Amino acid sequence: MKFKVKDLDIASGGILVIVINQDDALALGLHHGDRVGVVYKKRHAHAIVDIAESKKSVPIGSIGLFEEVLDYLGCKKGSSVNIILEPKPKSIKLIREKLEGRRLNYEELKEIMTDLVKGKLSPVELTYFVAASAMRGLDEKETVDLTRAMIETGDTLEFPGEIVLDKHCTGGVAGNRTTPLVVPIIAAAGLKIPKTSSRAITSPAGTADTMEVLAPVIHTKEKMQAMVNKVGGCIVWGGAINLAPADDKIIQVESPLSIDAEGQLLASILAKKGSVGSTHVLIDIPLGKQTKITSKKKAKHLASLFRRIGKKLGMHIEVILTDGDQPIGNGIGPALEAKDILKVLQRSDTRPLDLEEKSISMAGKMLEMAKVTNNGKKLAQQILDDGRALKKFQEIIKAQGGNSKIHSSEIKVGKYTYVYKSPKTGKILDLNNRSVSHIAKLAGAPHDLGAGMYLHVHEGDRIKKGESVLTIHADNKEKLTFAKKELFASKAVTFK
Amino acid sequence: MKFKVKDLDIASGGILVIVINQDDALALGLHHGDRVGVVYKKRHAHAIVDIAESKKSVPIGSIGLFEEVLDYLGCKKGSSVNIILEPKPKSIKLIREKLEGRRLNYEELKEIMTDLVKGKLSPVELTYFVAASAMRGLDEKETVDLTRAMIETGDTLEFPGEIVLDKHCTGGVAGNRTTPLVVPIIAAAGLKIPKTSSRAITSPAGTADTMEVLAPVIHTKEKMQAMVNKVGGCIVWGGAINLAPADDKIIQVESPLSIDAEGQLLASILAKKGSVGSTHVLIDIPLGKQTKITSKKKAKHLASLFRRIGKKLGMHIEVILTDGDQPIGNGIGPALEAKDILKVLQRSDTRPLDLEEKSISMAGKMLEMAKVTNNGKKLAQQILDDGRALKKFQEIIKAQGGNSKIHSSEIKVGKYTYVYKSPKTGKILDLNNRSVSHIAKLAGAPHDLGAGMYLHVHEGDRIKKGESVLTIHADNKEKLTFAKKELFASKAVTFK
Repeated sequence: MKFKVKDLDIASGGILVIVINQDDALALGLHHGDRVGVVYKKRHAHAIVDIAESKKSVPIGSIGLFEEVLDYLGCKKGSSVNIILEPKPKSIKLIREKLEGRRLNYEELKEIMTDLVKGKLSPVELTYFVAASAMRGLDEKETVDLTRAMIETGDTLEFPGEIVLDKHCTGGVAGNRTTPLVVPIIAAAGLKIPKTSSRAITSPAGTADTMEVLAPVIHTKEKMQAMVNKVGGCIVWGGAINLAPADDKIIQVESPLSIDAEGQLLASILAKKGSVGSTHVLIDIPLGKQTKITSKKKAKHLASLFRRIGKKLGMHIEVILTDGDQPIGNGIGPALEAKDILKVLQRSDTRPLDLEEKSISMAGKMLEMAKVTNNGKKLAQQILDDGRALKKFQEIIKAQGGNSKIHSSEIKVGKYTYVYKSPKTGKILDLNNRSVSHIAKLAGAPHDLGAGMYLHVHEGDRIKKGESVLTIHADNKEKLTFAKKELFASKAVTFK
Repeated sequence: MKFKVKDLDIASGGILVIVINQDDALALGLHHGDRVGVVYKKRHAHAIVDIAESKKSVPIGSIGLFEEVLDYLGCKKGSSVNIILEPKPKSIKLIREKLEGRRLNYEELKEIMTDLVKGKLSPVELTYFVAASAMRGLDEKETVDLTRAMIETGDTLEFPGEIVLDKHCTGGVAGNRTTPLVVPIIAAAGLKIPKTSSRAITSPAGTADTMEVLAPVIHTKEKMQAMVNKVGGCIVWGGAINLAPADDKIIQVESPLSIDAEGQLLASILAKKGSVGSTHVLIDIPLGKQTKITSKKKAKHLASLFRRIGKKLGMHIEVILTDGDQPIGNGIGPALEAKDILKVLQRSDTRPLDLEEKSISMAGKMLEMAKVTNNGKKLAQQILDDGRALKKFQEIIKAQGGNSKIHSSEIKVGKYTYVYKSPKTGKILDLNNRSVSHIAKLAGAPHDLGAGMYLHVHEGDRIKKGESVLTIHADNKEKLTFAKKELFASKAVTFK
C-alpha cells in the first residue's frame, strides 16, 4: 500500500518509528508497536508503528517518518513509500529458546545479530535476549560465536598480515586518560593502532570527548582506514562508525539496569577490537573500591577468560590488574585531561607523573607483545623522551583535522574557579573516584569542555594547612556553586 | 524548567513520550530515552524523552506531547508545564535482584507494580522484570504477593459480604462463547457476576467484540458497579476500566515473545478476578491439539496451583478440563457468535446445542460452588428453558445501552458468502481450530463485525456429498476471496 512521506522531524535515538493515521491502521489491521516494512526504491526499512489519532499530524494516505527512517531510506517529504506487512523474524523463536535455557550455535546467534542490525528486533525483544544471555549465561563457545556474529554484521577495517594493537580499560578511575599517550608511542614505534573510543556516559569525560578538544573525532570508516594506513594510529569516536553496530544496540538496553553479564561484557569488548582488525590487545582492569571490577578473584577469572576467548578469535590478549583506588592524572574533564596529555608529550615540568608512568608501562607491555623489544618500558620511555611520541601525536591530530601545533598552555579551561585549600596539616588519606567524578560533572563536564577539576595532590601526599588540594573549573557561576556545594557535602577528600 | 506545550497528535499506544528540541536537551543534559517528570498543575507524569532535530516540529522552549501525556496531565496546546529531572526509581534495583535470582517480598513487588502503573518503568525495564519472573520463576508466595500488588495498584469493585462469581477460559477454541450465556443464568439465579472480557488479539472474536454487537461494552468502573448492583451482571470490555492496570502493561511486553510463564499467568488471571471482587471463580482449561494448554498433566498441575493460590487470596477456585479439539458453537466472528447466543437464549430450533450444553454445565458448576443448589445443571437448564436467562440478558443489554428486544434473526452477518459443500459422502474427522480461526480472520473478523464463518457440521457428523460443511461470510468480495483461497490451501476440514 502506497503512502506519501511526511517528515516528522523527530528522532527516537535509534529504533525506526513510523506514524500512520488511525483509519489507515484500522484498514491495514495494524496496532501500536506492530512491525512493518517500509520500502523506498531499493531500500527496505523495518519499522515500529505509532498511530496518529487525527488527521492533523498525519493525514490518511500519509506516513510520518522519524529522522532515523528518513536517513535509512534516503527519502524525503513528499516521497512515495510502500508499507508491507512483515512476519515475525525467525530470531524471535531463537530468543525464546535461549530464555528456556538452550545453547545457541553460531548460525543462530548470527541470525539474531543480523535481525538486530537490520532493525527487525524491537527493544523489548532485544531485552529478552540480553536477559536470557545474562541469566542462562553464555558459555565460551557461545561467547566466541556471538563475538564473531557481532563483528560480521558490521563494517570492518583490514590490515592484512600486519600486527594491529589495541587496548581497553574496564573503567571506574577518574582521569586515567592513557589512550592519547599509548597510541602515539605505539604508532611512533612503527606499529598500527586504529583506536576507537567512547564518549562519556556516566563519567565526566570519555577518551573521545578529551580527544575532541584537540581534533575532530567523527570520521568515516574509510577515513579511519586511510589515516591509520598513513600515520599508523588514530583516536576516533566509535559511535560514528558502523563497527559491531549490534554492540551499541545491546548496550542501549543493558544500561537501564546496568546489566554487565560476563559473556556479554567479553563479546562487547572483543567485537569492537575484532572489527578494527586487532591482533594484539592489552586489557587494563583497575581494581579499587569504586572501579567496575572490585574483586581480585573476579579480575583474575576475567583475565583468563579474555585470554582463552581471544585465542579462539585469533587475538593475542594480555591482561594487567592495576591500582584503581584513586584518580590518575591531575585533570578531570575533557579540556583539563587534554592539557595533562599535552603536558606529558611536551615534557612540561608540571606534567602528571602517575599518568605518564601508567601509560609507559602499558605501551611497554604492548611493544613486548608485538615482539618489538624485550624491554618495552625502556623503549616507550625513549620514544616519549626524545619527542617521537609528540611528533606522532601531532601527525594524528593533523590527520584528524585538528591544530597540531597547539601547546598545553593554550588549552582553555573553565574560567570560574574555586580552589579548595587544606583545612589542616597532615596527609591525603583518600581521594574518592566517584565523588570526584560527580563534582566534575556538576561543574559541567563533559558538556562544558573546560569544566571539571584539577587535583593538586594524590593519596599519600603530605599537605600543609592552607595549601591547594584541588581546583574546580566551570563555565558559569551557577554550576561552580553546585559543584562546590557537593564538594563540601561529599567525602571526595579524606585527610589524616 | 518551564516549557510551552505543543500537541503532537501522535499516540505511542501506552508509554508516555515527550519531545523536546535538541538545544534544550543539550542544556538539560538529556538523551534519547531518558526519563523526566512533567508537571502540570497538580498532575505529575513520568515520561520518556525523544528529541527533535530542528525547530520545525518542536521549537526551543516548547515541549511536544504525545496523546497519552496530554490525557494524563489534562493539559492542552499552549499550556505551560515544568520538566524536572528524575532519579531512577527504586524498583530498578529490585528488578536487578530478581534477575540475579532473589525472591521478592510483598512490599518489593508492590513497589515495582506501583512504579509500573505510575509510568516510571520503561518497556525495557519492565521486560527485565517479566524475563526474570519467567526464568527465575515466581514461587507461590511471590505469585500471591504479585497478584495482591496488581489488584491494589488499580481500581476495584466492592460487593461487601456477597458471593461474587466469575469465570475464565485459558483459550484456544474457536467459537466457545459461553460467557454471554453463563452470565445471565448466574445473575438470574440472584447472584452477582461482574464480568470483564477482552477483545480479540489473535482470534477472530473476543467476548467483548461479540457482546458489542448487542450493546456498548465501554463503561466506567462506577457504571459497572451500578449495573451489577442493579441487574446482577454485566459483560464489559476490561480494557476500558482501570482494573489491575499493571497486568495490561505486563501483557504488552509478554506478547512479542508469547511469554506465558506459570506465575505470571496465574497472577494475571487472578488479579483481574480479584479486582472485580470475585469470591468464587470457575476456570475452564480446554485441552486439544491447538489449545493454549495441550497436556493433561500440565493442566492438572495448573489446576492445583489455581486452587491453592486462590485460597491464599481468599477466592474459592474450581477448575474444569474440557474437550478443546474442535470449535464450539456454529458461528465464528462477532455477529455470527452473537446470533448463536441469542438463538440459545431465544430457544431457536437451530441453536448450537454443543455451546448450550457447555454453558449449562459451567453455569451449573458455578451455582453449586455458590451453594445455591446441589444440582446445578438442572437449575441452569430450568433458568434457560423458562426464559429467565433471556429476560436477564435483556436487562443486561438494556443496562449497557443496547437494544434489548433484538431477535437473533435481526443480527446482520456478512452478505458476501461462500458455501463449502462436502466433496464426498462420509464423516467429518477433524475441524481444525487454528485454520478455522485463520479463515474467519481473513474474511474480516473481528474488524468487520459480520464477517467470519458458520459451521454446519461438527466432528463425528456423517455427511453426504454436496451437503453444506461451512459458510464463509464477508463484507466485501476481496476478503471473501482471500478466505476462500485459504480454505482450500489449509486443512480446516478433514473427511474420512
